[in-house]
Amino acid sequence: MTVHLGRRYTFCASHRLHSPALSEAENKALYGKCNNPFGHGHNYEVEVTVRGQVDPVTGRAVDLAALDSLVETQILAPFRFRNLNEEVPAFRSEVPTTENLASEVLRRLQSAWTAEFGAVARLEKVRIWETDRNICEIDI
Amino acid sequence: MTVHLGRRYTFCASHRLHSPALSEAENKALYGKCNNPFGHGHNYEVEVTVRGQVDPVTGRAVDLAALDSLVETQILAPFRFRNLNEEVPAFRSEVPTTENLASEVLRRLQSAWTAEFGAVARLEKVRIWETDRNICEIDI
Amino acid sequence: MTVHLGRRYTFCASHRLHSPALSEAENKALYGKCNNPFGHGHNYEVEVTVRGQVDPVTGRAVDLAALDSLVETQILAPFRFRNLNEEVPAFRSEVPTTENLASEVLRRLQSAWTAEFGAVARLEKVRIWETDRNICEIDI
Amino acid sequence: MTVHLGRRYTFCASHRLHSPALSEAENKALYGKCNNPFGHGHNYEVEVTVRGQVDPVTGRAVDLAALDSLVETQILAPFRFRNLNEEVPAFRSEVPTTENLASEVLRRLQSAWTAEFGAVARLEKVRIWETDRNICEIDI
Amino acid sequence: MTVHLGRRYTFCASHRLHSPALSEAENKALYGKCNNPFGHGHNYEVEVTVRGQVDPVTGRAVDLAALDSLVETQILAPFRFRNLNEEVPAFRSEVPTTENLASEVLRRLQSAWTAEFGAVARLEKVRIWETDRNICEIDI
Amino acid sequence: MTVHLGRRYTFCASHRLHSPALSEAENKALYGKCNNPFGHGHNYEVEVTVRGQVDPVTGRAVDLAALDSLVETQILAPFRFRNLNEEVPAFRSEVPTTENLASEVLRRLQSAWTAEFGAVARLEKVRIWETDRNICEIDI
Repeated sequence: MTVHLGRRYTFCASHRLHSPALSEAENKALYGKCNNPFGHGHNYEVEVTVRGQVDPVTGRAVDLAALDSLVETQILAPFRFRNLNEEVPAFRSEVPTTENLASEVLRRLQSAWTAEFGAVARLEKVRIWETDRNICEIDI
Repeated sequence: MTVHLGRRYTFCASHRLHSPALSEAENKALYGKCNNPFGHGHNYEVEVTVRGQVDPVTGRAVDLAALDSLVETQILAPFRFRNLNEEVPAFRSEVPTTENLASEVLRRLQSAWTAEFGAVARLEKVRIWETDRNICEIDI
Repeated sequence: MTVHLGRRYTFCASHRLHSPALSEAENKALYGKCNNPFGHGHNYEVEVTVRGQVDPVTGRAVDLAALDSLVETQILAPFRFRNLNEEVPAFRSEVPTTENLASEVLRRLQSAWTAEFGAVARLEKVRIWETDRNICEIDI
Repeated sequence: MTVHLGRRYTFCASHRLHSPALSEAENKALYGKCNNPFGHGHNYEVEVTVRGQVDPVTGRAVDLAALDSLVETQILAPFRFRNLNEEVPAFRSEVPTTENLASEVLRRLQSAWTAEFGAVARLEKVRIWETDRNICEIDI
Repeated sequence: MTVHLGRRYTFCASHRLHSPALSEAENKALYGKCNNPFGHGHNYEVEVTVRGQVDPVTGRAVDLAALDSLVETQILAPFRFRNLNEEVPAFRSEVPTTENLASEVLRRLQSAWTAEFGAVARLEKVRIWETDRNICEIDI
Repeated sequence: MTVHLGRRYTFCASHRLHSPALSEAENKALYGKCNNPFGHGHNYEVEVTVRGQVDPVTGRAVDLAALDSLVETQILAPFRFRNLNEEVPAFRSEVPTTENLASEVLRRLQSAWTAEFGAVARLEKVRIWETDRNICEIDI
């Protein structure tokens, strides 16, 4: 029996959409008000989905305490109440759009995944809500 | 890096479930109170999902302003505060169930998609909530 | 110990905003797209609040089954899947705005209240969400 | 035209996470506070997804009244306001985790599916929210 | 400038509605399925509202860390993942209805309030959602 | 018939909690991670409540288009996608806590209210959700 376990987390952060590869005018045309140099922010929601077999003894497909701890260390502690552009190294060069943020969350979880979970439970999907109207998902 | 970008929109409309191919008694048996000749309505939620590669310069998989504009023109302006049976041509012959509504939303977006987005971003999925308990999804 | 008990209910209905006391042009200017002659609709949410003393034997301030039954008979059965203008007598003369709808809900509950609940539990407040952005409350 | 129809249902129940195959200390270490011998509970949300072709006469992919009736009989009536460990036979031997609960919901729907729906509409997916932060999905 | 500060918390617990002052038949008639001897449970939401003056130096009407800590100690730690009837002393004699639960939450906060907050910030209101359809509020 | 009309709006912004009247250490102790010099942000929700008599001709207690326009001009346009500390003059001297933000929203609406609405509809209440767990209300 394969199941897909989803856990939702939330963090508040600020960001500015601005690409160093574009001119001021291009940035303004592309990102509009989100290019405001002082930045703005969001209550981000992150859903991490894990695929695994249900262990007949425990009834669990993944150790949820270990998952929560991994997400806390890799994502929530470094992102919570932060300015993504200034305080998350990846966003010194990448624009912190929802697409790149989902991608960075995935990279951080993947880099630590095998050491924590081996091949028992697979990281399958990351979904981020920037607002309840704007969502980005990456499937592995 | 392929991502799935979802955008949610809302519109309020009315409809009546009634099939011209069925008798009065069959319509009543099939649709119950939703066959009421005076109609009723909903606050519809629509989620449009787009699949694309993230552009390394912009950090975007789709031009969201262009997507919003397409949805406004094709879906929201013609459906918002409308009676679907009377004011949307497709529902003169089709019953405006959630299934047919999702299908009509998809057709309208597809008909205008290539002119707007070419092959860069693909329309992937339409999801409609008639209420928070009743949902229809069509994948391409 | 006085408590305030709230119960939420939902019904789907259609309506048209149009005042017989105004000209076509005035109606259009005032209600905009909501004046559309074919009507539109909503998933309405209704919260009924009752004030009462907690009975030390039952731990209850109001008989919830009796309250649900009263709301079903007075509000949900006559409004659910209906066109408010055509099928609810009050809206033959009144415009079915959220204000007048809240007022009609209150009148209907009050007319049957004393026979059902006497003076033990008081009807205190009616709150209606036309959408999650548009709310009307009437306090008694 | 293939669509995916989702219907959401809710029920309140209690449970205790405790595996008879583990020692007291192992149960406590694994399930933490959820191993509390007196149990605790949740407002569970269940989404059942059906895949089918849209019937051109009815505009429907599945008879929703029949689906609601099947879910009421197989899931809601036996689970609503129940203690899952004590009152649902499967959980005498299995631990009522979200994983096993999703699996039991699926088994119950599958056992009755063909008699009700034949091959016209396929049961495709079950999704359970134990809380809005903890979700389990099983795809067929 | 007086403000009303609300903080929402959540906990999962189980309970059974049964009054020792009533017969088996009366309990069953009054509470229906909620009288099930094995109990059931909920994801409770609690909103605590505090009234206070905004301090011109801090911009705060209440020390939120102190409030969170008080609610954790008095309410969440003793109620979370518990059976209210068996593990919360007040519900040995009182029926754990939403009314009595709100009342117990209030008593517990009031008993510790003055020692923590003095007269600077007043406890004003407790609101409990047993489900999103069933709400109890007590105002001081 | 007096009613209370609520309208909800949303805007995304960033802020930093830091009081110029306190030392670095005091700021850090008081605001914790929210004192981070680079700031963070939120999806703010604002509910504006208006009290008025229902006009028997229009069925309205307030001109909603005028209300939306006032809120757009006074609140949403200057706050949306902004850094509150840097771009809203009041927060050069005041700390942009939820309390002070609610107070600033109220001041801005009051300053323009009478010119727009006279004494027909009264501004009654402002409610701000910084997150769905943290709420501030000011009543007039």
